[in-house]
Amino acid sequence: MPKTILDIVKECDNFIHPTEDPIKYTQTLQTYYAFRLPDCPTPLGYIPASIIPQVIWSPEWWCINHASRTVTLTAPGPAPARTQRLAQTLHDTRAARSLALLSGWRNETFPVYGPRGDVLLEIERAASALFGVVTYGVQLLCYVRCQDGGLALWIARRAAAKQTYAGMLDCTAAGGLAARMAPMEGVVREAGEEASLAAETVRARVRATGCVSYFHVRGADAGGETGLLQPEVEYTYEMELGEEEEPRPGDDEVAEFRLWGVEEVVAALRRGEFKPNSAVVVVDFLVRHGVVTPENERDYVEIVARLHRRLEFPVCTAPMG
Amino acid sequence: MPKTILDIVKECDNFIHPTEDPIKYTQTLQTYYAFRLPDCPTPLGYIPASIIPQVIWSPEWWCINHASRTVTLTAPGPAPARTQRLAQTLHDTRAARSLALLSGWRNETFPVYGPRGDVLLEIERAASALFGVVTYGVQLLCYVRCQDGGLALWIARRAAAKQTYAGMLDCTAAGGLAARMAPMEGVVREAGEEASLAAETVRARVRATGCVSYFHVRGADAGGETGLLQPEVEYTYEMELGEEEEPRPGDDEVAEFRLWGVEEVVAALRRGEFKPNSAVVVVDFLVRHGVVTPENERDYVEIVARLHRRLEFPVCTAPMG
Repeated sequence: MPKTILDIVKECDNFIHPTEDPIKYTQTLQTYYAFRLPDCPTPLGYIPASIIPQVIWSPEWWCINHASRTVTLTAPGPAPARTQRLAQTLHDTRAARSLALLSGWRNETFPVYGPRGDVLLEIERAASALFGVVTYGVQLLCYVRCQDGGLALWIARRAAAKQTYAGMLDCTAAGGLAARMAPMEGVVREAGEEASLAAETVRARVRATGCVSYFHVRGADAGGETGLLQPEVEYTYEMELGEEEEPRPGDDEVAEFRLWGVEEVVAALRRGEFKPNSAVVVVDFLVRHGVVTPENERDYVEIVARLHRRLEFPVCTAPMG
Repeated sequence: MPKTILDIVKECDNFIHPTEDPIKYTQTLQTYYAFRLPDCPTPLGYIPASIIPQVIWSPEWWCINHASRTVTLTAPGPAPARTQRLAQTLHDTRAARSLALLSGWRNETFPVYGPRGDVLLEIERAASALFGVVTYGVQLLCYVRCQDGGLALWIARRAAAKQTYAGMLDCTAAGGLAARMAPMEGVVREAGEEASLAAETVRARVRATGCVSYFHVRGADAGGETGLLQPEVEYTYEMELGEEEEPRPGDDEVAEFRLWGVEEVVAALRRGEFKPNSAVVVVDFLVRHGVVTPENERDYVEIVARLHRRLEFPVCTAPMG
């Protein structure tokens, strides 16, 4: 039974919405601890209660309150000092080998923003889902206008050796946004590394088209512990290519590129062949280009709203250029 | 002091979000009565408590519960029977002249959808904001690609005699979606009536690009009582025009059309010259076309999410074609 497009969106945005069932939402939150800083009025992420005993919390700079279910990093700012304390905690925990997720250590940090757009601290990429903080990425779809007026998309197939979502379909290029990297720089870099597209071409012709946002609960195919939270923002980009322009795999992340007609793309989406967060970027593209319409898609309004979830944590508010 | 783009979005989407301040959200909800049907698990809209004494509720088919703050239409289905009871209530109330909003009676009904996508009842257009039910509209922006690669938009100025938002700027064509009208048919009709664009041209070349959704609290410039709620979904469309193609006012709703460069559009938005729900459609266009970008707009992520609010009522889920 093929999935509906709403099924695909719900698989990615699968953390309960507060207005959907307020009682169940409140109950769900009680199975998490809020990650807080003393000088920030809102939580920065949610940590599953089951993870709390697995982390080596130094009482010198952490305050764990089991009654209010909060984990507060009490180390004073500025950001580098907090970043260092958090890194120390993660190193200690990794050494204890209590959490599978930390075996995928990347030596790359992601920024965590506060309500005024300032970076409050940075966190090792592999650990961001442990704390459930918002992370940011870029996704590029390259497309061709066919002679019949239709569209075709350059779809990547992930390498069989990838740790996560091996062999699944993907956008033309995509990647996480490390601290201090502007989205445009991110898409230029990923397009070069993954699809061998020249930086000057991308910079001149790529178009920013918005962002998708969702609140994902990690399953087994993401690797590491299940039940971890990933609230994410993916900046979306598109670029039209001529018939002679072809993306080529530029590193060992991509097995192959193939040009897919939009109907083929929809069929592959419905068979569940796309990586979940790439699938929602493709759906957003299909809506924006009038392939999925209010007349041919029953759940159009709910799909568009869920592709753009308003997250309950502070999000990036500073120009990153 | 010019407005920011986030200010513009917040003026339209100005009903409190549940995760922004859960306590204030709950307190706000206590100043409204939920509009319910006995066989529907979710409310269909919110009615301000101040409105309740102004409406002539027949106890034969209404149950008002002041403890649970619910207004339930107990008249049994099917939809036409409920529609008729609701219409009778509105006629009785209009005759009593207790509500200014009802003086704008349109003799046009809007559908109210249930959780399974069925139309539960229809409501007179002028009364939809009294009950705070979700309404639907279409918005079309026609644009021209300039020789320098930039974009220009065909912006309408509303007639000085319009009851609402007189003299303000507007999209190329827009209108509400009455019961039993598909979005594509709505945009074809409005483009013809308001902008004199031929139906066959629009049908062949217009592109569905998604929808914006927001939860608006009506102010004084909307006419009628203030504090009424308008959760709305606007299906967005765009159409590229050649240099010789020009929209012309087709009825007395539009004073004039003028081609505005995108920078002029942004400046007019920031001066507050656009009708609020047209302003958000223009912002969505500017994001989609890479004019507003993550690098030049500090509040990019929050803007994109708030342009696509997930409403807490059932939304249209049936193909309307």
